[in-house]
Amino acid sequence: MTLGPLTQAPELVISAWYNSKKPIALEQLRGKVVAIYCFQMLCPGCISHSLPQAKKLHQYFSHEDVSILGLHSVFEHHQVMNNQALEAFIGEYRLSFPIAVDKPAVKNPIPETMQRYQLEGTPSLLLIDRYGYLRVEAFGAISDLQVGHWLGSLLSFNPDAFQESSEDNAIGSCNDDGCSIGQ
Amino acid sequence: MTLGPLTQAPELVISAWYNSKKPIALEQLRGKVVAIYCFQMLCPGCISHSLPQAKKLHQYFSHEDVSILGLHSVFEHHQVMNNQALEAFIGEYRLSFPIAVDKPAVKNPIPETMQRYQLEGTPSLLLIDRYGYLRVEAFGAISDLQVGHWLGSLLSFNPDAFQESSEDNAIGSCNDDGCSIGQ
Amino acid sequence: MTLGPLTQAPELVISAWYNSKKPIALEQLRGKVVAIYCFQMLCPGCISHSLPQAKKLHQYFSHEDVSILGLHSVFEHHQVMNNQALEAFIGEYRLSFPIAVDKPAVKNPIPETMQRYQLEGTPSLLLIDRYGYLRVEAFGAISDLQVGHWLGSLLSFNPDAFQESSEDNAIGSCNDDGCSIGQ
Amino acid sequence: MTLGPLTQAPELVISAWYNSKKPIALEQLRGKVVAIYCFQMLCPGCISHSLPQAKKLHQYFSHEDVSILGLHSVFEHHQVMNNQALEAFIGEYRLSFPIAVDKPAVKNPIPETMQRYQLEGTPSLLLIDRYGYLRVEAFGAISDLQVGHWLGSLLSFNPDAFQESSEDNAIGSCNDDGCSIGQ
Repeated sequence: MTLGPLTQAPELVISAWYNSKKPIALEQLRGKVVAIYCFQMLCPGCISHSLPQAKKLHQYFSHEDVSILGLHSVFEHHQVMNNQALEAFIGEYRLSFPIAVDKPAVKNPIPETMQRYQLEGTPSLLLIDRYGYLRVEAFGAISDLQVGHWLGSLLSFNPDAFQESSEDNAIGSCNDDGCSIGQ
Repeated sequence: MTLGPLTQAPELVISAWYNSKKPIALEQLRGKVVAIYCFQMLCPGCISHSLPQAKKLHQYFSHEDVSILGLHSVFEHHQVMNNQALEAFIGEYRLSFPIAVDKPAVKNPIPETMQRYQLEGTPSLLLIDRYGYLRVEAFGAISDLQVGHWLGSLLSFNPDAFQESSEDNAIGSCNDDGCSIGQ
Repeated sequence: MTLGPLTQAPELVISAWYNSKKPIALEQLRGKVVAIYCFQMLCPGCISHSLPQAKKLHQYFSHEDVSILGLHSVFEHHQVMNNQALEAFIGEYRLSFPIAVDKPAVKNPIPETMQRYQLEGTPSLLLIDRYGYLRVEAFGAISDLQVGHWLGSLLSFNPDAFQESSEDNAIGSCNDDGCSIGQ
Repeated sequence: MTLGPLTQAPELVISAWYNSKKPIALEQLRGKVVAIYCFQMLCPGCISHSLPQAKKLHQYFSHEDVSILGLHSVFEHHQVMNNQALEAFIGEYRLSFPIAVDKPAVKNPIPETMQRYQLEGTPSLLLIDRYGYLRVEAFGAISDLQVGHWLGSLLSFNPDAFQESSEDNAIGSCNDDGCSIGQ
């Protein structure tokens, strides 16, 4: 799988944060690569594969370079996967990176952020580059090799070089201050 | 670890059953070896090691010979590890063996069966022989080799032979009808 | 897989021993369960699965009860899987249980013991009970659960009980001194 | 571990090639990232970890971008880890990437390439960037996450950007045709 085009990552819509004193906006994280692990507590693949991988990344990469976030995107069993259960879960699994609760939607079992990103389910991995572009959206278990490769690429990503080689597509426009879609 | 002496296994004290139309009493299971996996939904070692092992045993052994039971022994986070959550959990993890809920105690966070068996925590494995004796009570992750060895021994266990070799200790008394403690 | 009938295990035909000062005859091991791991140095499944399992068993079981043997049964690449290479291999992989070299046959690539036991290939596992009967002959990777189960059964095996329950088949005849086929 | 400075990778000194019709010089591979897995057949960590990782990389990455090479660097048990044994080994383990034999040295157990690169032992991993610089030399088992990260970085590596940020150290000098050490 290759990295996607320069599409701006939509802002997260969050109802609660754990392991963070304040809400975190993606915009604040410009300059870092952001890895968002979307999970549900009652999703076996999330527990056996994705959250352990998130912990590994959190330990391996410098926090100056890579920001790991968990996103609890509950789209089934809403009553039992509530915030009280999540808090106990975070403690028992010793998750130390910031974890956000995807805001429940009105009259829709799919929560707000999950809708915006059109996620297929959990686990899903979102990778956002230093300039705020959503470059990876992957459903299911992703190998460590694949994640390492993507992060290595994104950490080295030079949007000026990217722009030149994709000028005809006019996907994005970047300067030293950052990148903007459109013109 | 070797098999323990011929101590009668106390009856389970259960408030609800899943994957079983009727309550199951240990007494009904005489003639089979019984493996009871005591767990909590929010116990990482239970999810990563013990319940997968329980599934493996349930698939591997003939149900005529070995009965696998889960026992949800909640001693912390009682509010979130409730029966509604357990039901969703059983479905998502595709557990198909009978699962009992250890009856909550009054004024004690430790549930009734856990108290009776003086369990150290979760995961715990209880092995009960064909004659109703509790022969293994093990806390923590147990290797497949160890569990296989114990079950192989218990399936071949001949209480008459046992009595002879342990007569001086007068632990138990067995005849063709079964075994009784005491005399 | 269930344990096989009471067929006498043929004696091994061996051209060299490592990790043992003297040759070992199966007959000397009566009273113990014997697990023989048949392997070749250039067999990937032997290296990744069977020899690590053999090491685990050698560490786990009392050497009074279970004897672990390696059997280097070379049926291909004879020139390179020679004894000098085997000796280096045993050292590098820190194998500490006795390892025998299956005697090369004249005008047959299959070595002598492998022929006698009609092994399908490597890895193969042979389990011989306390009375010298070959009860398991299994080709390929065997799970720890399965091996544990078999060894637990064989360690508890009482040939008198066996004889009674299988009298009609007249497979074996056992007394306190041992078991013999036939009558 | 971070990527090393722009030091030219010494050419390999090779006595035989497998899985390649012709000898391969590093110089021919300019434009690709090269991953060289240094191993010995009788090195347990090589067999259990490094060669399986090499196979994974060979399958995962486009061969236009990443070249995987094996290097059989024998520094002990020279007699048994000979080319005939290596050929059988390559077949049995189904290794399909090119494998070179590090040229034995005269009066030194350490082979020529191993000396040039001052390798600590096996397994060792060498990563050479698109411009011929040796950027990683790592001894022991390396995680998939780490290797993926390194390769992602090296595939995105832009030597012009590198030069600017390291000008004061005057390590290397690069232009559109490539990079050269020194001036």
